Amino acid sequence: MRSSMVRELLKLTARPEVISFAGGLPGADLFPVDRFRDACRRVLDVHGAQALQYSTTEGELPLREMIARHTSRYGIGVTPDHVLITSGSQQALDLIGKVFLNPGDHVLVERPTYLGALQAWNAYQAEYLPVEIDEQGMRADDLESALRSGPKFIYALPNFQNPTGVTLSLERRNALIRTADRYGVPILEDDPYGQLRYEGEHLSSLVTLDADYRGLASDSYSGNVLYLSTFSKTLAPGLRLGWIIGPLDVIRRLAQAKQGADLHTSTFVQLVAYEVARSGFLDQHVRRLRSAYMTRRDAMLAAMATHFPAGVRWTNPAGGLFVWATLPESMNAGDLLRTALAERVAFVPGAAFFPDGSGANTMRLNFTNASVAQIDEGIGRLGRVLRRTV
Amino acid sequence: MRSSMVRELLKLTARPEVISFAGGLPGADLFPVDRFRDACRRVLDVHGAQALQYSTTEGELPLREMIARHTSRYGIGVTPDHVLITSGSQQALDLIGKVFLNPGDHVLVERPTYLGALQAWNAYQAEYLPVEIDEQGMRADDLESALRSGPKFIYALPNFQNPTGVTLSLERRNALIRTADRYGVPILEDDPYGQLRYEGEHLSSLVTLDADYRGLASDSYSGNVLYLSTFSKTLAPGLRLGWIIGPLDVIRRLAQAKQGADLHTSTFVQLVAYEVARSGFLDQHVRRLRSAYMTRRDAMLAAMATHFPAGVRWTNPAGGLFVWATLPESMNAGDLLRTALAERVAFVPGAAFFPDGSGANTMRLNFTNASVAQIDEGIGRLGRVLRRTV
Repeated sequence: MRSSMVRELLKLTARPEVISFAGGLPGADLFPVDRFRDACRRVLDVHGAQALQYSTTEGELPLREMIARHTSRYGIGVTPDHVLITSGSQQALDLIGKVFLNPGDHVLVERPTYLGALQAWNAYQAEYLPVEIDEQGMRADDLESALRSGPKFIYALPNFQNPTGVTLSLERRNALIRTADRYGVPILEDDPYGQLRYEGEHLSSLVTLDADYRGLASDSYSGNVLYLSTFSKTLAPGLRLGWIIGPLDVIRRLAQAKQGADLHTSTFVQLVAYEVARSGFLDQHVRRLRSAYMTRRDAMLAAMATHFPAGVRWTNPAGGLFVWATLPESMNAGDLLRTALAERVAFVPGAAFFPDGSGANTMRLNFTNASVAQIDEGIGRLGRVLRRTV
Repeated sequence: MRSSMVRELLKLTARPEVISFAGGLPGADLFPVDRFRDACRRVLDVHGAQALQYSTTEGELPLREMIARHTSRYGIGVTPDHVLITSGSQQALDLIGKVFLNPGDHVLVERPTYLGALQAWNAYQAEYLPVEIDEQGMRADDLESALRSGPKFIYALPNFQNPTGVTLSLERRNALIRTADRYGVPILEDDPYGQLRYEGEHLSSLVTLDADYRGLASDSYSGNVLYLSTFSKTLAPGLRLGWIIGPLDVIRRLAQAKQGADLHTSTFVQLVAYEVARSGFLDQHVRRLRSAYMTRRDAMLAAMATHFPAGVRWTNPAGGLFVWATLPESMNAGDLLRTALAERVAFVPGAAFFPDGSGANTMRLNFTNASVAQIDEGIGRLGRVLRRTV
């Protein structure tokens, strides 16, 4: 198991004088603390001691019903039995590794891809088939040749991908569904940020497109996609609350694995999250987040345009939490981080997101957990470091 | 992975007319609900949004400090760095399997042993070396011959074992420490119930005896025992909050595995549990539990003596949650459960706790989650079923 650079960084960035764009953190200033305070009280008033007792591995029914209802809005046949509550979507990645991966099995991943998925699957001795991404997401030519090597599944982050912020185009989504079906390879769709779109039209999720493709629209979902999401970016990550949606037989196997892994996710946390989210609050709150995060993204992109030297390129994310920057080939973002920390600004060097350890000249910048003033100041500091180095 | 009988049972026993001795449930009537309500409010008042943000994999420092202080009372050198917070002690079992077990590795277990441990390690394709237990716990003769087969570690529940309620004697504890050391095999000490003793003297934990044996008393603990415990039986299981204490290098490896498994345990739950437990409340509350649970244990043992037919034997637990009954050889507790459910009473057939699937004529009875009146009535019903069958 490789040691996590992100984890060590999160320790350094706790120093108050550092402006950190490193963590994948949502903006704590926007957490609905008062609503949580009321929800805790109501849950204990209404459920009493049962809110603190053991419960079922699958998760609390009202919460699974809410998630199923929400997903069904997109026209696929999802019931609470298609939903497994997990201890954050990190646990979902772990359980999928545990159930599906044997040592030496290959997973097709975007290049770069989410570090946490690599950490989860390294524990099961997975190997990776990386597929290049461009501004439209996974490249179709590369995809086909990787599929020929027989991966166990495809891991895709279609919306505002972590780490690059790139979104898979609708055309490529449909192609991915068809190609995966042709090769008989299932798709794992990880969608933590899908609701955080700041411009453009919502694109259908892979699970929805797959149901359409198979003519399953109103049937009990039994297609080729496992869908993951989380409350970490829409409510609060400190809950550790995510979910998996998939065909009933897969959910059953994952629930068995979850029973051995932690029996079930905290009863109290599930009931509190339901109480916070219900009666339309979550949708309202997400609208508030979109507006605030769009402002922060715009501030970061504007500051980068002002302060970063020629020779540095970056993505233009339509949503999510991250901008991805590529430095001149000769530069090493790990070395740069040391200099940047001396200037009291932090980011994540991109190499950790490449399963093959390449990407030394890339960096991930988070824009959601800083004020516009901090973004201006922090990107200014980083720009000075870059101008001295490029 | 074998399907869990306990899990299916917990579903049946949700019917209100059934008196259930099946689950390993603490008494919900004793959960300190008001203290939890106040703690939630205080945590959000004091920590605000940070109580809902991502935090470190190792766990919240005040909580680890409290656990380290508590453990140090027994005279071993445990600091917060020796403590890893887990999502219930079930996750501790899973992480230990993930880090230490390869397919085909053997684990030395008591016979019978905790079902959840078998479920956790079956996922890593473990094999088992079962050691017979009697009223004094693991038998020394059997232990030695099992150690000769080279297990990866020894799994021991020294206090009021799940499922039998049996306690490992002090003499056998010391012998276990010495013998394990001689064979170079580490010990995993699972201690969810240690504080729930209703009579007799507290016996030193294996981790303490091991530190004494090695002369480590005041040093940073670096011995041969990993110690697990949980708030599930002393505060509330719906939190999903446990911990591992062990040598620093082992804790570091387990923390890496935990990062891939769920990033960290809920920040909010950890802070709330600390707030509930602090200022001596936990010790007070445990005294209250001991008194209430002793009454329930006594009621169950008395009712069994009154209602159970000759030919049925049972243990006499000095603490914990369970009585273990052995029926005549010819009987099958699984078949009996069907009849019992028709009479609106439930228990767990014991076979699930035997790694080799034997134990068909055994049953586990939980006495902590029922009132004295329910215990009298339920054991009366079960006695009628038994008298018709024996």
